[in-house]
Amino acid sequence: MDGYYAFMLVATALVLMMTVPALALFYGGMTRSKSVLNMMMMSFGAFGIATLVFVLWGWSEGWGNLGNGDLISNPFTLFGLKDVEWSSYIGMAFQLTFAAITAALISGAVADRVKFSSWMVFVPVWLTLCYLPIAHNVWGGGWLSEHWVAQDYAGGTVVHINAGVAGLVLALVVGKRVGWPKEPMRPHNLTLTMIGAGLLWFGWYGFNVGSIVFPADASEADMTKQFMSETGVTFVNTTVATAAAMLAWLLAERVLHGKASALGAASGIVAGLVAITPSCGAVNTYGAIIIGAVAGALCALAVGLKYKLGFDDSLDVVGVHLVGGLVGTLLIGFLSTSSAPGGVDGLFYGGGLTSLGHQVMAALFTIVWTGVLTTVIALAIRFTIGWRTTDEAEVEGIDSDQHGETAYEIAAGTGVLS
Amino acid sequence: MDGYYAFMLVATALVLMMTVPALALFYGGMTRSKSVLNMMMMSFGAFGIATLVFVLWGWSEGWGNLGNGDLISNPFTLFGLKDVEWSSYIGMAFQLTFAAITAALISGAVADRVKFSSWMVFVPVWLTLCYLPIAHNVWGGGWLSEHWVAQDYAGGTVVHINAGVAGLVLALVVGKRVGWPKEPMRPHNLTLTMIGAGLLWFGWYGFNVGSIVFPADASEADMTKQFMSETGVTFVNTTVATAAAMLAWLLAERVLHGKASALGAASGIVAGLVAITPSCGAVNTYGAIIIGAVAGALCALAVGLKYKLGFDDSLDVVGVHLVGGLVGTLLIGFLSTSSAPGGVDGLFYGGGLTSLGHQVMAALFTIVWTGVLTTVIALAIRFTIGWRTTDEAEVEGIDSDQHGETAYEIAAGTGVLS
Amino acid sequence: MDGYYAFMLVATALVLMMTVPALALFYGGMTRSKSVLNMMMMSFGAFGIATLVFVLWGWSEGWGNLGNGDLISNPFTLFGLKDVEWSSYIGMAFQLTFAAITAALISGAVADRVKFSSWMVFVPVWLTLCYLPIAHNVWGGGWLSEHWVAQDYAGGTVVHINAGVAGLVLALVVGKRVGWPKEPMRPHNLTLTMIGAGLLWFGWYGFNVGSIVFPADASEADMTKQFMSETGVTFVNTTVATAAAMLAWLLAERVLHGKASALGAASGIVAGLVAITPSCGAVNTYGAIIIGAVAGALCALAVGLKYKLGFDDSLDVVGVHLVGGLVGTLLIGFLSTSSAPGGVDGLFYGGGLTSLGHQVMAALFTIVWTGVLTTVIALAIRFTIGWRTTDEAEVEGIDSDQHGETAYEIAAGTGVLS
Repeated sequence: MDGYYAFMLVATALVLMMTVPALALFYGGMTRSKSVLNMMMMSFGAFGIATLVFVLWGWSEGWGNLGNGDLISNPFTLFGLKDVEWSSYIGMAFQLTFAAITAALISGAVADRVKFSSWMVFVPVWLTLCYLPIAHNVWGGGWLSEHWVAQDYAGGTVVHINAGVAGLVLALVVGKRVGWPKEPMRPHNLTLTMIGAGLLWFGWYGFNVGSIVFPADASEADMTKQFMSETGVTFVNTTVATAAAMLAWLLAERVLHGKASALGAASGIVAGLVAITPSCGAVNTYGAIIIGAVAGALCALAVGLKYKLGFDDSLDVVGVHLVGGLVGTLLIGFLSTSSAPGGVDGLFYGGGLTSLGHQVMAALFTIVWTGVLTTVIALAIRFTIGWRTTDEAEVEGIDSDQHGETAYEIAAGTGVLS
Repeated sequence: MDGYYAFMLVATALVLMMTVPALALFYGGMTRSKSVLNMMMMSFGAFGIATLVFVLWGWSEGWGNLGNGDLISNPFTLFGLKDVEWSSYIGMAFQLTFAAITAALISGAVADRVKFSSWMVFVPVWLTLCYLPIAHNVWGGGWLSEHWVAQDYAGGTVVHINAGVAGLVLALVVGKRVGWPKEPMRPHNLTLTMIGAGLLWFGWYGFNVGSIVFPADASEADMTKQFMSETGVTFVNTTVATAAAMLAWLLAERVLHGKASALGAASGIVAGLVAITPSCGAVNTYGAIIIGAVAGALCALAVGLKYKLGFDDSLDVVGVHLVGGLVGTLLIGFLSTSSAPGGVDGLFYGGGLTSLGHQVMAALFTIVWTGVLTTVIALAIRFTIGWRTTDEAEVEGIDSDQHGETAYEIAAGTGVLS
Repeated sequence: MDGYYAFMLVATALVLMMTVPALALFYGGMTRSKSVLNMMMMSFGAFGIATLVFVLWGWSEGWGNLGNGDLISNPFTLFGLKDVEWSSYIGMAFQLTFAAITAALISGAVADRVKFSSWMVFVPVWLTLCYLPIAHNVWGGGWLSEHWVAQDYAGGTVVHINAGVAGLVLALVVGKRVGWPKEPMRPHNLTLTMIGAGLLWFGWYGFNVGSIVFPADASEADMTKQFMSETGVTFVNTTVATAAAMLAWLLAERVLHGKASALGAASGIVAGLVAITPSCGAVNTYGAIIIGAVAGALCALAVGLKYKLGFDDSLDVVGVHLVGGLVGTLLIGFLSTSSAPGGVDGLFYGGGLTSLGHQVMAALFTIVWTGVLTTVIALAIRFTIGWRTTDEAEVEGIDSDQHGETAYEIAAGTGVLS
């Protein structure tokens, strides 16, 4: 089993790398040049805060009372990693990185306009009231998993639907950017976004493949065997779904707008990764292709909704993570097959509606829980310390206003404009 | 063996990362700023297409009929991963990433001027007619390997000579960029190229070290032992050859032009990695230093040839991958030693001309096969859907023309030009 | 043990990645745009040179005579990896990457003003006279470790204090940049610095976690057990100290200047990583939080010292690596606990002053040895080939002067300034 353990060390480092710097780059490239540092700081800051939350009370609140069947879990049982065996540290660290990236994902919905200090207050509160309870319910043996055994291999509900709903709430409570949607707010540096998308894809193998769980009564030989077969499936499913989603997004753009864009490729990659996150262990190769293609095409359409509905989800957290997360979570109900590691037949494989029902319940649980509580948190911040910087600062540049810096200082002497 | 397996999971993710985003950055930084997104999209798109080709018929066409001794292999035997054991999935995925990067490498030869749609047609056809048959012949027990047992540890022929020849053919068939070679077409962002070179080096440890092959009759204990010794040699050889090649390229520049450049360092790194790819298991530390140094110096000279011969191999696919691939493949005939994992003595170690002969045959086979078939494919596209965008679009910027985007939107307010 | 071995393959590649490209980016983003390529080349070049030094005589000089108890070690015993077992190659390569990054770290102290050729002479001499002897004394069973058994898990003395002292000496001997400190020399591209900081954090798990050492008489089962528990502690300590340091630096900035900056976050990350490098195996989770917080706050103050004392340590090698390295090395004397893998109680855990004494001695040894010898080397270069380029070249741009290139060539047509 030291091979599995060695993989988990690397997988955990990979998921850290997904937030710092991959997500920061993916998001940062999409903002305006006067806001890129602030955007990156929301990811970096979230990781810092999430780390302290997690080693103090987060691990306890999510996984400290495995199988208690309750809606919430005592955050003090393992406070400060008290009584945690060293051999469990890496499993704890792996989950820590998931909490961090989920919080960071939300930031895309409120790009370019919130005070850094308010963000740094929001993150620990949100993790404590939304992320950790949902993780406990889906993965930590809480109430939900006692009643509806949904398949969520690596976080379609806990991570993506969760972040998507929170992003929607924040976009509504925080409000639109000055000038949106009239003024063009084009990505300022798509090469950063492409680096970010590529590194996210790379890191996602840690995220998905590392999420393998062994039966409680498995012998070491059983575990090794499972590790050396199941991970191949989740790895390949992650790859093909992502490829299919990127191609589907590009095709949708080509059909709708005549041109396939780099922003579309980067977004399609993330949409595919999101959708295969819950489903990578539930489906076969064809299922993964379908989930990826559906996610890519649907999310390509969904990112236009904000203009029709009038909420400024700046970097499409809703269109990619909520929609992509729902696609992956719900299609399991149809495409899940007993010939995949999950071992459950969905509707198309003769398993009836049971699986679909459980998937719907898990999605609904997440939407309601985090929808309600994020609204409470967001409003509390709005009416106390406030979310927004001033309009002048926003127009002038939030990097300068919030951080006293600008990202670029490139002199003419280096050849720019030559 | 779960340690070896864990390493292969990581190695496969690393080779994916080499294409997306590393190669995209390495190439993207070298184009003009109006073409960088298109350049990156050729790598991203190639990976997407290669993935679907591979899980549908590619694995079968390359490795599905091991040891049949034929020139080609049935692409339908394992169609859609039918009958493929889960435990083989990661081996399949590893090879998938090799196919993807090989196709992506070619794109450097035709930077800045081809229609994205034509590229997306070229890739699957080329993989099917050129890459997979050559992989079958060199690695999959096909005809060539029955007659000449060349040493090609990780793809000097299959990947680099292959991509180099295809790049040469495409550069000739597609033609020169508007204004080439009169107008300066300097790299627009060498920091991207440096990031790309660094990440390629990092990922190449997955590429080379992961290419270890075990004898068919090896016991698990034998395999573990081989894994824990051979990989040290291939790791170190990869490192020293790359370092030597970078230094040799810089020295060549210094002698020839008076100054050693960052572009030279980045190119030298890749030249060294290319040359040690086939040879990392065949030589000792001194052999690796020599191969690296020769590749660095020779490629530094070779990249100037295109100006003399008049073909616009824009980003030096021929000068680096064809020349570097040949250096590594042929020097094995001289420097191979039985005290290295490959166990074969080359000319300088008293092994006579046998090894050199086999190396030459493998190189020739690749050059002829892919030279002929790539010409057919390239001409077929030229006379049907066409390769080139319009001259106006090319001058205006292919990013805008093909993708409806530009990469950079950096406002004066952030300090640019201040 | 093949799981541990697999991890070391990845860890070694990660530490390579820390120098090429991570450190090059971290530093490169902080320079002016006319110097970024030169800055990156100092890291790339250092890696190339360090590789050749190491496989020729470095491994022998540092680790070739384990436990001889002498101040120096014979560099020819294992020259060219003679008589080195293949199974030891990866251990050698791991140490190679440490030597390379230590040399590269120094370059930040003399950014923007030294001749590339002089740097390429300095690196091999410094490695031979300073790095390798200190590594031999701290880790290779040399004189120091016979007399004072300091805890230095991954290089607080060997890497960070060492690089910090050398940086201070070089900054003094080489002198200030033209215009410093009157002219503003702001970082030209903080997105590069943020990428670099993120990738350094990622790679540091290879650096710290891979530095596990097994007792000479450990059985394979003991080693596997130790690997599967100790690494969890070092991984988690690395994570929490880094998070705490980033937050502490941001807080210090907020208190002192009113705004928390992205440059502060990036610098805080590195300060935390530096301080936890020696101590990640010596302390528990709370100890790691304290070490990180102290390092973040102290280094945030220390980087201002150069303006008061008047030495142009351009990118804060002294403020971050010397100060951070001292914080981590000395706090072990207070916070070390027998309930951590190191098994030693420091002052606060009832262990008295013994541990602190040993830590002080190791720090002093490094400071004196490298302080004296680096001065000799730096002066020798100053009075022979010289360090500085001309003042005109420095003002015009060292990239152009030394490498015949500029980093950026971004055309107005792509939307810049629109």
